[in-house]
Amino acid sequence: MKKKVAIGIDVGGTNTVFGFVDEAGQCVYESSILTHADQDADQLFSRLFIKIDNDFKKYSDDYELIGIGIGAPNANYYKGTVELPPNLNWGIVNVLEIVKKYSPLPSSITNDANAAAIGEMIFGTAKGMKDFIVITLGTGLGSGIVVNGELVYGSDGFAGEIGHTIVDPNGRECGCGRKGCLETYASASGIKRTVFELIGTTNIPSELRNVSYNQLTAKDIADAAKNGDKLALAAFDYTSKILGLKLADSVAHLSPEAIILFGGLALAGGLIFTPTKRYMEEYMLNIFKNKVKLLPSALPGAHAAVLGASALIWNELKKIK
Amino acid sequence: MKKKVAIGIDVGGTNTVFGFVDEAGQCVYESSILTHADQDADQLFSRLFIKIDNDFKKYSDDYELIGIGIGAPNANYYKGTVELPPNLNWGIVNVLEIVKKYSPLPSSITNDANAAAIGEMIFGTAKGMKDFIVITLGTGLGSGIVVNGELVYGSDGFAGEIGHTIVDPNGRECGCGRKGCLETYASASGIKRTVFELIGTTNIPSELRNVSYNQLTAKDIADAAKNGDKLALAAFDYTSKILGLKLADSVAHLSPEAIILFGGLALAGGLIFTPTKRYMEEYMLNIFKNKVKLLPSALPGAHAAVLGASALIWNELKKIK
Repeated sequence: MKKKVAIGIDVGGTNTVFGFVDEAGQCVYESSILTHADQDADQLFSRLFIKIDNDFKKYSDDYELIGIGIGAPNANYYKGTVELPPNLNWGIVNVLEIVKKYSPLPSSITNDANAAAIGEMIFGTAKGMKDFIVITLGTGLGSGIVVNGELVYGSDGFAGEIGHTIVDPNGRECGCGRKGCLETYASASGIKRTVFELIGTTNIPSELRNVSYNQLTAKDIADAAKNGDKLALAAFDYTSKILGLKLADSVAHLSPEAIILFGGLALAGGLIFTPTKRYMEEYMLNIFKNKVKLLPSALPGAHAAVLGASALIWNELKKIK
Repeated sequence: MKKKVAIGIDVGGTNTVFGFVDEAGQCVYESSILTHADQDADQLFSRLFIKIDNDFKKYSDDYELIGIGIGAPNANYYKGTVELPPNLNWGIVNVLEIVKKYSPLPSSITNDANAAAIGEMIFGTAKGMKDFIVITLGTGLGSGIVVNGELVYGSDGFAGEIGHTIVDPNGRECGCGRKGCLETYASASGIKRTVFELIGTTNIPSELRNVSYNQLTAKDIADAAKNGDKLALAAFDYTSKILGLKLADSVAHLSPEAIILFGGLALAGGLIFTPTKRYMEEYMLNIFKNKVKLLPSALPGAHAAVLGASALIWNELKKIK
């Protein structure tokens, strides 16, 4: 009998990654094509399925494809659409209808953070959990919320925008057009902004004073902090304080068993986990204290996006069973 | 055939109200006993069931009791407990075990705001809705969250504490021991605090400058605002601004179809609904704008608590069907 695999597709602004993932979360094969963000969605999926069909040939004797799970920016699970993605020139487009032109397999789409949450539930840290939140700390802050074992899509498919809860309505300018959103503080770009604000507002000596904003990465800040750079450490503390404060608000809404941090900034490990946990505990209502775990992702970094996308299909199949 | 009714019980600090409610939300009979907050829970339910058994006699030819729904402060749906209720000298007590001593009927318990949310879903404004939030604006701010047609209890039964999300970690002292919780601003006592802060920080003339804090009620502030009192109007604007800001955060989490305002302060009508809606829209992420309804409760004020409590049982029976 052939072994079943799902296709996981992660659409990014630069690369579109895909892979074949089995029910145990083993990524049998992974590859990618350039997204060409200026081209429309149909052109991307036309090129992508030529590659998928071709690459699958050498697996087709042993494996059977059972469905297609897609993670994409601004994707709507209910409608199958991607709507005005910030880094792609797509406008509003029904991706699942396009996919149907190239494959008869069942398909499902959601945004990257929701895919990460389902990935953690099916293959990762949240296995066996029914109530948890995944926070992706990348360029922005994405989130996927699971309640009672089901991803929360809300009335319109767009729930889970914790990155756009407001820390301070007169705070930092956000890409969304408003001010003070959480992701302007707690994200890879947020901690960079904090470093530059601290460079301006304090006299703390720092090696980061030699680096321009455009050159600086979140990893540079983590490396400096590990070397004891006081300004970098202050930036991690400030980031964690704001993240802990707002996560305490999320706990007040949902009382999750765990919050899982995922993505680039989460790789800073204890630098972000230790103070965020401390501040979260400080800001939480008594009845929630010392109950909510703050955990790292257990999806292997290299395949995390594809695993998350494929989990979307594995999860749908579990519901049907 | 006898008509089925559920017993709804609402435990308050002063009175414990009960009633017999049919599947259509008609309250056939309602009465109450004094709670005696200094006595333990067993004594309350012992007295209560003597009264219920006695009062039901004149209905027993036509009606059949099908279950007992209880709304109580700090109640835990999963465990059947009430834990350290602020206005009752109960400690931690398993109420459903006590109830079993006095009645063989199936019983269920949750906190008052969750009961209100289920009441709105079964009998009120949220009929037919699958994703909504009920906010109770009384002495404090309570909330009940419904996702996918199910009340959100979270991992421990204590989800839905939107009143204890933090507006400002250096803000007003809250009864919970922390600072700046939403309920210190947006509630009947919150708007009183705002009036007194405005009396101190502004020179706005106001009839409320003649009233002491302990004498003032939220209704007095609404009456003054209706008479054009500028300070009272400013207090409603400030309350609404903070409520709108934090409700926008709740929308970012859950993308509900509607938010329903319930309880004393919601009776101020347009004074609270109009500016709260305006600020909520202002603070919401683009994708949510002009989608989320802000609606008043449709539970008849006199019986709202009992209807909500009874709805808990009607809802359980719907799930079994």
